Amino acid sequence: MYNFRTDLAVERTNLYRKANKLEEIDGIETEDQEINENIKVSRVKITNENGEQAIGKKKGVYVTIDLKDLKVADEDEIQKASDTLSNELKTLIQNHVQSKDDIMVVGLGNIYVTPDSLGPKVINEIDVTRHIIKYLPQYIDENARPVTAISPGVLGTTGIETYEILKGIVDNVKPKLLIVIDALASRSIERISSTIQISDTGIVPGAGVGNTRAEISEKTLGIPVIALGIPTVVESAVLVNDCLDLLIEKMQNEAKSNVYLNQLKEQDNYEKIKDVLNPQNYNMIVTPKEIDDLIENMKDVVARGINMSL
Amino acid sequence: MYNFRTDLAVERTNLYRKANKLEEIDGIETEDQEINENIKVSRVKITNENGEQAIGKKKGVYVTIDLKDLKVADEDEIQKASDTLSNELKTLIQNHVQSKDDIMVVGLGNIYVTPDSLGPKVINEIDVTRHIIKYLPQYIDENARPVTAISPGVLGTTGIETYEILKGIVDNVKPKLLIVIDALASRSIERISSTIQISDTGIVPGAGVGNTRAEISEKTLGIPVIALGIPTVVESAVLVNDCLDLLIEKMQNEAKSNVYLNQLKEQDNYEKIKDVLNPQNYNMIVTPKEIDDLIENMKDVVARGINMSL
Amino acid sequence: MYNFRTDLAVERTNLYRKANKLEEIDGIETEDQEINENIKVSRVKITNENGEQAIGKKKGVYVTIDLKDLKVADEDEIQKASDTLSNELKTLIQNHVQSKDDIMVVGLGNIYVTPDSLGPKVINEIDVTRHIIKYLPQYIDENARPVTAISPGVLGTTGIETYEILKGIVDNVKPKLLIVIDALASRSIERISSTIQISDTGIVPGAGVGNTRAEISEKTLGIPVIALGIPTVVESAVLVNDCLDLLIEKMQNEAKSNVYLNQLKEQDNYEKIKDVLNPQNYNMIVTPKEIDDLIENMKDVVARGINMSL
Amino acid sequence: MYNFRTDLAVERTNLYRKANKLEEIDGIETEDQEINENIKVSRVKITNENGEQAIGKKKGVYVTIDLKDLKVADEDEIQKASDTLSNELKTLIQNHVQSKDDIMVVGLGNIYVTPDSLGPKVINEIDVTRHIIKYLPQYIDENARPVTAISPGVLGTTGIETYEILKGIVDNVKPKLLIVIDALASRSIERISSTIQISDTGIVPGAGVGNTRAEISEKTLGIPVIALGIPTVVESAVLVNDCLDLLIEKMQNEAKSNVYLNQLKEQDNYEKIKDVLNPQNYNMIVTPKEIDDLIENMKDVVARGINMSL
Repeated sequence: MYNFRTDLAVERTNLYRKANKLEEIDGIETEDQEINENIKVSRVKITNENGEQAIGKKKGVYVTIDLKDLKVADEDEIQKASDTLSNELKTLIQNHVQSKDDIMVVGLGNIYVTPDSLGPKVINEIDVTRHIIKYLPQYIDENARPVTAISPGVLGTTGIETYEILKGIVDNVKPKLLIVIDALASRSIERISSTIQISDTGIVPGAGVGNTRAEISEKTLGIPVIALGIPTVVESAVLVNDCLDLLIEKMQNEAKSNVYLNQLKEQDNYEKIKDVLNPQNYNMIVTPKEIDDLIENMKDVVARGINMSL
Repeated sequence: MYNFRTDLAVERTNLYRKANKLEEIDGIETEDQEINENIKVSRVKITNENGEQAIGKKKGVYVTIDLKDLKVADEDEIQKASDTLSNELKTLIQNHVQSKDDIMVVGLGNIYVTPDSLGPKVINEIDVTRHIIKYLPQYIDENARPVTAISPGVLGTTGIETYEILKGIVDNVKPKLLIVIDALASRSIERISSTIQISDTGIVPGAGVGNTRAEISEKTLGIPVIALGIPTVVESAVLVNDCLDLLIEKMQNEAKSNVYLNQLKEQDNYEKIKDVLNPQNYNMIVTPKEIDDLIENMKDVVARGINMSL
Repeated sequence: MYNFRTDLAVERTNLYRKANKLEEIDGIETEDQEINENIKVSRVKITNENGEQAIGKKKGVYVTIDLKDLKVADEDEIQKASDTLSNELKTLIQNHVQSKDDIMVVGLGNIYVTPDSLGPKVINEIDVTRHIIKYLPQYIDENARPVTAISPGVLGTTGIETYEILKGIVDNVKPKLLIVIDALASRSIERISSTIQISDTGIVPGAGVGNTRAEISEKTLGIPVIALGIPTVVESAVLVNDCLDLLIEKMQNEAKSNVYLNQLKEQDNYEKIKDVLNPQNYNMIVTPKEIDDLIENMKDVVARGINMSL
Repeated sequence: MYNFRTDLAVERTNLYRKANKLEEIDGIETEDQEINENIKVSRVKITNENGEQAIGKKKGVYVTIDLKDLKVADEDEIQKASDTLSNELKTLIQNHVQSKDDIMVVGLGNIYVTPDSLGPKVINEIDVTRHIIKYLPQYIDENARPVTAISPGVLGTTGIETYEILKGIVDNVKPKLLIVIDALASRSIERISSTIQISDTGIVPGAGVGNTRAEISEKTLGIPVIALGIPTVVESAVLVNDCLDLLIEKMQNEAKSNVYLNQLKEQDNYEKIKDVLNPQNYNMIVTPKEIDDLIENMKDVVARGINMSL
């Protein structure tokens, strides 16, 4: 497969089209929409195996919402972003379940580690209804959908794979669809807390940080899984890689590069840099200085977006 | 059943003995131990149905650890309290499982509500080992016991009964014993954050605050459940009740009481006061002013006590 | 002075009028306004010594904003409450300073104690401008007012009277007006987190909880002080007092009362109950169960209200 | 001045000695001590202008405490580290003030930004005594030293220079010595949360992150200032710089380097990399993944170390 340097379906599609000088790719449908000057939505639908192989993504729908300047967003912009998320979620949910089917919202991550706390924080804001419908039906609209919400914790503090915890709960509570929220490590500095990636193909928790875990998806749990991934950190190697490219470019401009460096710039040096960093045990994460504020704003966007869609 | 005004097995036993002028109660064994001037341990073992009926508690072991002045406790006192808890837990654990059997620690409560956050905070400090034993056995002693830890959240934010969540996880992860930590509403102001109640008969989450929930016990989950209950709040009605008794006593001393008040003092007016308070929707909780510090210190005591016992 | 059982100027005025069967009180002007079904504003202006003596409050303006159901308030209601607060503040500020005069916002209280954390939390949300006007004037509107914001901490953790800290900073930074936010202990359960009291006569920090401290006012600091007081706790004695009244009422209805109790109900037993409670060292506070959520919503209302008024 | 690539007096002294092949430097006295296998102390005393110029540091005492593996430190190691800090502080304090002179502890930084929250968190744990000595002298040893503690906040949230706030408070409260705690941006990844730098020459808040602020020192405040600096983040440019060196080394080993790169490795490219990064507005910080735990442990070490020294 082509080395895409990105996990986003929309970016991979564009790169593939450019590299192969194609207008259209068989098995991939795309659509872009500009909501306003700060919010853009891209939708990619992979419909067959050719599409799957072209960009290395499973059949399904991939939506990317880009939010500019979220860290200084005021109330109106947060509301607009929530509305956008809500609309995309509604469409995806309707593709898979009926209007009164049970939905469980799952917030992955560690409440005690700031950039990883987005999922559990969103869970605290979800309007759960299942217990009201069950015990106090007189207090709720009769068309209300049963909604539940849990934060299963992380392997390092539970000792249990997230998949194992969810499997047990899903088998017992029997929701018809999962919405899973996860804070991701991004391959791009620009996307930190400014992108929401939605897909209906599930998620592999911790996939972004090199700890491969059991997949959370329809295949493993037996019910559709809509995943919301939000980049909140980048790995050290990504930062170094991006800077190295900038440095070589500067050297090229000043005619100080060499063949090796020129080659270096054409490649993805991410793995090479990881090899250099790992033996030093430089187990660092890179975040924006305003990460605490960003997480708060993103929590509002995601929680409201989900609540309105349910 | 005698109206005991207390949930503690040790206090009920003493009241029953006094009321019936008994030295011994058939079916109840008791033992008191003074660890030092700040720490006392009482053990009550109910061995037959007569004991059960006498004090209205199920067959099993009930240990009460009293800690004086925990809010100003220094490092040494916290360590001593942890050691005491650890010893009691070790004994109870050995009664039920083998030294390498899986144990799951469960922290009930809501991390976002200070007096209810003890359970989840303890979970964050538990030394979990199951995932290391499973994926990286070379990094851990071969006699290590698999330990897991989870915070299932509360009905109000999950929409799911705690029992339902635990049932699913227990069926899937298959621990041999649960240790459940719960912050209780106390019937006594003096016991707030100064008492740890341990028993091997399970727990009914939220039992203390009038929201009866499905029991978490060997009967419902199929494995032994050791419960650690720590009072962190009192209900409004308890405070009013205690004060009313003090007020009537003062009125009696000043010869201003009447027959009705004298009767009032002999009864437990808790239910009557709740009836008066409820229509006003006075949904208040009463905590010590130092509740944040108390929870921090108690978290250290409980987390260390559990870690040392496993 | 009449024993008012309340600290609010508006309630004292009404009680005084009723007790003395007056339509008007010389030296007191009042005005009520209903913003919508959930928000009410009362304004009391004390203009002379007769007014001061009648209700035991210093000359000045006292505004009370009542907010219903803040704990379940949605975004629109929070915004409406902020707008109301902002309008009242603007009027008061214009009474005392010019549109470009420096204003310092002061958040009293302890960030580590939930019901006392409102002030410091608001400070974190204030849009400060003084440093931008001073160092980066090109990035800010030339009519912007210099705004600063500080949390001086509490005597128990600083060892310094709040007044001493503020005196030093005010002398050095030289604002023209202070806005001081304080979480109060209320004499009424109903007012918890549903009332904002605004006055331009300053504040005595900790006045509500029995720890009298040096006054923060124009008299002591030399600049006008607008105080925002928000009740977040009640003392134990208030709860017991309110319940006792309800109990006696019930006893009267059931013809079980006596002369002493009937008298008791006519008096304010607050001090008597405090006398009974104090020797027991029942140093408890009473809060609504939803105190954490209430503080978050009130923080948004107060921070936005202040930001819009500056 | 020699480009030292480090701010630490001890490292500069060693580099200067090596570069100039000196055994001793006139005006600099050094001493190293190994407390145990995890704790090392280096003391550098600059006694004259020659020493000042050699390593670019003002006359005074500079102590560096190195703590290995603090993130997994148990209770004993935290206590040992506190003892070490306490001993060094005691010596420095005795050099400047008498045993009953007032001391004010100042925690710089922003409580709402995890890696910057160390200072305010330590302040919450300081045993303040001034108010007890003043109001309740019967409850405290008559030889107790008056201790106060404040968190002045940061320019971005207060709008006021830290120096201005402290100047006002110091002039009003009149302590005889300040102990200032600051979380630093480090020039070295290894030193993150594993080093405490102590000196009696004051501090420039935010000096490490490119926001030069007014100095906090005896020169500006009129009383001696002991500064405790603890690295908790590194800047992006430091990470890239360190990796670039490692990458070039690898290229040299594989004979793929060139003259330019070889030169690059001899230089400090920190400023060059910052030039490349800045136009991209990559305002990122780099922290260890375990930063929340590290801050908690370091808070315990520093708070206990200070409390024992006072």
